[in-house]
Amino acid sequence: MNQSYPSVLLEDAVNEFSKLPGIGKKTALRLVLHLLRQSEDQVTQFGNAVVRLKQEVHYCSCCHNISDTDICNICADERRDHRLVCVVENVREVMAVENTGQYTGVYHVLGGLISPMDGIGPSDLEIDTLVERVRKKEVDEVLMALSATMEGDTTAFYLYRKLAGLDVKITTIARGIAVGDELEYADEVTLGRSIVNRIDFKG
Amino acid sequence: MNQSYPSVLLEDAVNEFSKLPGIGKKTALRLVLHLLRQSEDQVTQFGNAVVRLKQEVHYCSCCHNISDTDICNICADERRDHRLVCVVENVREVMAVENTGQYTGVYHVLGGLISPMDGIGPSDLEIDTLVERVRKKEVDEVLMALSATMEGDTTAFYLYRKLAGLDVKITTIARGIAVGDELEYADEVTLGRSIVNRIDFKG
Repeated sequence: MNQSYPSVLLEDAVNEFSKLPGIGKKTALRLVLHLLRQSEDQVTQFGNAVVRLKQEVHYCSCCHNISDTDICNICADERRDHRLVCVVENVREVMAVENTGQYTGVYHVLGGLISPMDGIGPSDLEIDTLVERVRKKEVDEVLMALSATMEGDTTAFYLYRKLAGLDVKITTIARGIAVGDELEYADEVTLGRSIVNRIDFKG
Repeated sequence: MNQSYPSVLLEDAVNEFSKLPGIGKKTALRLVLHLLRQSEDQVTQFGNAVVRLKQEVHYCSCCHNISDTDICNICADERRDHRLVCVVENVREVMAVENTGQYTGVYHVLGGLISPMDGIGPSDLEIDTLVERVRKKEVDEVLMALSATMEGDTTAFYLYRKLAGLDVKITTIARGIAVGDELEYADEVTLGRSIVNRIDFKG
């Protein structure tokens, strides 16, 4: 539908929103009209939150996660095991792992996964800095927590090759039947891998 | 899921986005991380577009549509029929009617529909200003283009009662079978109304 907006300002705002992933022109208009019904303070707060984040955000100089400071809270936490490093794609995966409450080590955020289709090669990611951390003997174990996708597996294999000669233990999170899943509906590849990688039963 | 964000700035931005209708915390984080990958100029442009819209937007003093000027383009257009006024809920419906290319009159934007459930009464809408336009003999015909919902019908009946004594023709857009619809799947109410309100066939 070729829209004709009654206001250039409205059109500008709708265009900006529709650049966001998964937001079309109709949704953008709905969001903009919602904001227009809010007070000027609230709208300014919305605009400023985004601009401030972009202007003032830091990336931790150690793990490259988003942070308010030069060293993030996790890397600065002395109670955590700094010799166990979990390699993740992005801040979202850091949050997912943190939410489990099961992990006590630190992180290394790659900033993406190797994806030739999207033009993302190893040099676009924080891979050299990970190798550097390992080379400096700062790390005993690298735990790869990457998505079980083509890109995740490619990245994991690439990291494995890069780190193979170095004195470090390389592990990956277990693939298997998700907790709560029924075997009947599990796909064959997952079920097969979970049989090959079976673990001792602790009663 | 109780999220713990690695950055207060990130959390602020996510919270602002998740206030928008239909945007949850996960989507908000995805949108914010997308913006974070853009250049600072692009992010500033995004923030400014929203704030500028709120600060500088006008509402047409005649039809109350969103406008960049005191009188909107449609009301200022002398080629349009100013004695035919289409009553609509919001700017979105103005755009929908304009997109048909079938309407040559002007508009009156109510700014919502009567909805006691949402606490929206007649006094919250631009109803008095419509009555005023009619009372001043500026209008020959009021065409109500409101949604075929409970709120739309309530508002239409209210407007009809308000305008009934005045010297104006009151019409409403036709309800019937949508173009392209198969009769078999049409609901009984719509089909029934389209029979009662049947029109002369122009071959």
